[in-house]
This record gives sequence, C-alpha cells and structure tokens, in this order.
Amino acid sequence: MKVHDGMASWNDGAAKQSILDFVQRVTTEGSPDFVPGPERIAVFDNDGTLWCEQPFYFQGLFVLDRLRALVPQHPEWKDKQPFKGAIENDMKALAGGGMPALVELVMATHAGMTSEEFEGIVKDWLATARHPKFKRPYTDLVYQPMVELLAFLRAHDFKTFIVSGGGIEFMRTFSEKAYGVPPDRVVGSSIETKYEIRDGKPVLVREAKLDFYDDNEDKPVGINKFIGRRPIAAFGNSDGDFYMLEWVTGGTGPRFGLLVHHEDGIREFAYDRGSFVGKLERGLDEASKRGWTVVSMKNDWNQIFAYEDQDALQGEPALSASVRR
Amino acid sequence: MKVHDGMASWNDGAAKQSILDFVQRVTTEGSPDFVPGPERIAVFDNDGTLWCEQPFYFQGLFVLDRLRALVPQHPEWKDKQPFKGAIENDMKALAGGGMPALVELVMATHAGMTSEEFEGIVKDWLATARHPKFKRPYTDLVYQPMVELLAFLRAHDFKTFIVSGGGIEFMRTFSEKAYGVPPDRVVGSSIETKYEIRDGKPVLVREAKLDFYDDNEDKPVGINKFIGRRPIAAFGNSDGDFYMLEWVTGGTGPRFGLLVHHEDGIREFAYDRGSFVGKLERGLDEASKRGWTVVSMKNDWNQIFAYEDQDALQGEPALSASVRR
Repeated sequence: MKVHDGMASWNDGAAKQSILDFVQRVTTEGSPDFVPGPERIAVFDNDGTLWCEQPFYFQGLFVLDRLRALVPQHPEWKDKQPFKGAIENDMKALAGGGMPALVELVMATHAGMTSEEFEGIVKDWLATARHPKFKRPYTDLVYQPMVELLAFLRAHDFKTFIVSGGGIEFMRTFSEKAYGVPPDRVVGSSIETKYEIRDGKPVLVREAKLDFYDDNEDKPVGINKFIGRRPIAAFGNSDGDFYMLEWVTGGTGPRFGLLVHHEDGIREFAYDRGSFVGKLERGLDEASKRGWTVVSMKNDWNQIFAYEDQDALQGEPALSASVRR
Repeated sequence: MKVHDGMASWNDGAAKQSILDFVQRVTTEGSPDFVPGPERIAVFDNDGTLWCEQPFYFQGLFVLDRLRALVPQHPEWKDKQPFKGAIENDMKALAGGGMPALVELVMATHAGMTSEEFEGIVKDWLATARHPKFKRPYTDLVYQPMVELLAFLRAHDFKTFIVSGGGIEFMRTFSEKAYGVPPDRVVGSSIETKYEIRDGKPVLVREAKLDFYDDNEDKPVGINKFIGRRPIAAFGNSDGDFYMLEWVTGGTGPRFGLLVHHEDGIREFAYDRGSFVGKLERGLDEASKRGWTVVSMKNDWNQIFAYEDQDALQGEPALSASVRR
C-alpha cells in the first residue's frame, strides 16, 4: 500500500524512494534502525537547497539594493570603491576588491542598526524587491518539493533546522512563513551584537564585526554549537555543504545525505562544477561512494516553485507551466 | 473553578498566582494579551534557578574533581599554580590567581578532547560524584517546583529554553532528562571547536579558546543569537540574570520576570547580597518597581528536591523531610 507522503512535486524515482525508505526505516518501532523522536534531526542548507541562489545569493542582491537606497545618505560612495562598483553594478571592479571589499559592503548594509530595525529593513525589501529573471518576490522562489519534504519529515517527528552560510538574522525574517522553520531552528552566519539602553529601552545593536561564518568545515561546528546533537539527515547543494553531509553521515546508525543538482536551465538555472555561486564538484564526485542521494531538479521534480500551479490555474503564460515535466 | 496546574510543590500565594495569571492572560484567545503559540518563549537561568549552585557552581566542582583525576597524567600540577591550589582545595591560593587562573583550570579540563569524549566524561562524573552537603548526585539537586513550572509552561505551548553562564556542552548532557529541555534549547557559554578527520571519522575537537561567555549583558545577546526572538518570560536568581530579565520584560505586550530568592538555609542555602556565587542585589532592589515576581524558596515552595518525597515514603531520615513546610 502506498503511504500518502504529501510530496506531490516529486516524481517517482530513485531519489524520492531513497527518502521514503530512510524515513520508513528510522520511524518503524522495533526495527534495528529505529531512531527515537528527539534524535530525529534534519539539517538543510538554504541558498540553492531551499530557495534559488542565482544569478547571485539573494542576500548579496539585498546588499546591492540596500547600498543604492543608502546613497543619498552617503554621497561619498559614488566615488569610492568598493561602493562605486556596487552601485554601478560593475562586477569587474567589485571582483577586483576580493573578499575584503565584499565584507565592507556587507557591514555597511548589515551593521549600525538594532536587530529589530534590521528585521524591518529586510522585510520591506522582501515585500518590494523582484528577482531579475522571474520577476517575482524572492520568497516566491522557494522550492516547492523541499517545502513538501520539510513538512513530510516534521510529520514524522523530525526537527527540521536550516544550517546556512547566509545571515542568521536575514533568514529568520522569512524562514517560519516560507518553510515552517521558526527562528530558533535557523543556524547561520552572524555579526556581533551589543546590549544597550536607548531612550530607556533595551536594544541589541548590530556591530560591524564578524561573529561566526557558518560555511564549509564550520557547518558541523555551527550544528554542534546551536543544535548540540548530531543530525541523522542532511540536505545541501554545493561543496560548501560537503563537510555538513560528511559529519552527519559519518555517525553511527542510519544516516541520510542528499544533494540538489541544478541542471534545469529552463525552469531554473543549470550550474555545478564551474559555478562561482553554488559550485558542486567534490560532492558530485563522491556522492555515489558515500551513499548520498543526488536529486536531478530536471527529472525528479515535476514542479519547482509553488506559483507555477497558481499560474497554470489562472491561465497565465508562466515561464515554467509551459515546460511542466 | 481551580485549574489543575500540576505545580504541587508551590504553595498558594502571590508568587504562584502571578505565574498562573500571566499564563492565563497570554493563552486566552480573544484577550488583548493573547500571544500566539510560536511567540510563547520562556528562558530560564540554570545555576541557582533550576538547580542548586552552592557551595559553588557544580561545573566548578566538576573542574576540581577532574583536575584530581588527571593528576597521574600531569604530575607537574602538584607544584604548579593554579593547579596545586585547586588539587589541594586551597581556596585562598585559587582566589589569588583571579580570573586568568580559573580560565586556565577550565581549559585544562574542558579542552583537548572531542565533543563526544567530553560528553562521556561529564556523564561519568554526574553518575558518580556526590554533593558535599546533600550526599546526593548533583542531578538530584534540581528544584522540583521549577521542573513543574517548566512542564506547566510547555503544556501551554511555551517553548522553554535554558540561558545560562554555564558551559553549553556541560548542561546538554543532562538537560533533557532533568528538565525536559533538549540540547537545541540550551544556550550557554562555549569554547571553540574545530572540525577534523581522526582515524577516518569526522570529529569536533574542543579547543582552549573561549567562544562566547553567556552572562550579564551577553545573556540578551545569547538569546538573540540562539533563539532569534524576544522571549515573553524570564526566570533567574542572580544579578547575572538582571539584563536578561530587563531585555525580556522591556518588550511590548505582556511580559513576565521572576527571581528565585535563596533564603532557606535549612532545606537548601541562604544567600543573596553578599554572596560570591549567585549574588542578588540589584535584582532585589528593583524587582518591585520593574514588576518582577520574587519567589521565596522558604515560603513559596513546600518541596525543593524531588527525592524528599521518596525519602518520606521510604521513611528515610532525609534532611528536608523533617522540615517540610
């Protein structure tokens, strides 16, 4: 008998079956692979795993939009790198500044306000900004199959966490609504904050100093710090997630690792080994020998974004409805 | 009609009533003070709030026991401060070394092993060590009224978190069993960890470097970092919790702050303004004007430790059963 899994956006196939088999094994009482509820922890990368990350990490696009919005208060930026390059969309000038230039831009847009003010700025941006290709709010670009997977796991008593290189306070503004993942289950990169009394009210002020960069080998570190227990399942899409999958699947007992492979240039974007954003090379090379599932967005997902359904219903000429697989 | 609250160890009185009133207000749909489930977050200090902290923080007593256990591997400690003072229980010599000496002792006992090895060491200690006054395992010294309060709040859809200056990986070894608080709901002080492959297996190695000290003004910082949402209720016992209560009760909408006052020298320990461990001065001075509840352990709690009940049933001459209030 087929169990109703609620994962309608997944085509039947090896990838979906590997998920169903794993959940079946760890939730069957009396089975040698049974895992008690409190230990059913699953971690998900965000950019490229739960939502789109092209043509650039959305938080990077937020930085560019924010810099332009702040130019009236910072006229000096028009003649000063790396601000000039960022404002003029001069990617060559930007790349020339390397990581220090990017950090300077992030700090100029992410620090100096209270955490509550920052939350408001991000929410305003998410409500008004539009993706350059899809012409949609960025939060429309979450992957419907992954939203279904998150819900499926939670229905089987998994705790679902986000573990991302993205900014923790950036993601927390939309994670609950978009994914059903509350702020306390979001792990990410952070800058330092400082407790102060302003106008008689306590506030936390965001400072231009890195606290934690949650990527690569530091994803297992972040998991240990925030979650405090080794997860039994990990989901990612790039080599930045490699160590997270290695850490999770390197434990004893039943373990599950999965990589989302972006190879649908029509409905989304096609990229892997050569990409600057979301490069996937070692993961592809080693997935098979490590027993990790690789999801083909082209073949395993019959729908990528939730709005495709709505567009189809309304007869709109959506990019993706016409190429429904 | 009296609602069954399950808080049998609390005497009827203003303290207990303030808790019941608050929970009633925030959980009554349609009430102007109603708070939706996901926003019902309560934070608890650990040492002196959820379990005993005298004659010294239990984690400090763990350090001393651990140093003595390690002497065979470190014969040089017998002649070298601060180790000599610690091993010989020479508190004067220890105090003379100040904070740097304490940090050296903590690092010597908390770093250099994997996080899983550390977990094993702490669990072994908790299973075998006995409290100097009560002659009981330390985990027997959790406050039964607070365990009942945690369960009461969770039964009303609160998420209960620990926010403590204590070591996060130390507390996580017992928080789920002792309090029903899983590892991912424990916020505390931490040292850095590093991801490594040892014998082909991924491990996290604990390094002798402070990552975060979760006390005083940094308790709100820790709350924001780990929980990402301002709690609506905070429970503490010392001035180290002052800013946490200020941050929580300084938000808009219904808020609740509570301080446990240690004034029962017979059943537990009596201390406040003059104490080195758990000093409570500013909190006592300002609780009234800030609307915070102060709990008298002497008058508000008819039972302090869960084992009092068992001893009474078994007719054992327990310290506390004879002075049951």
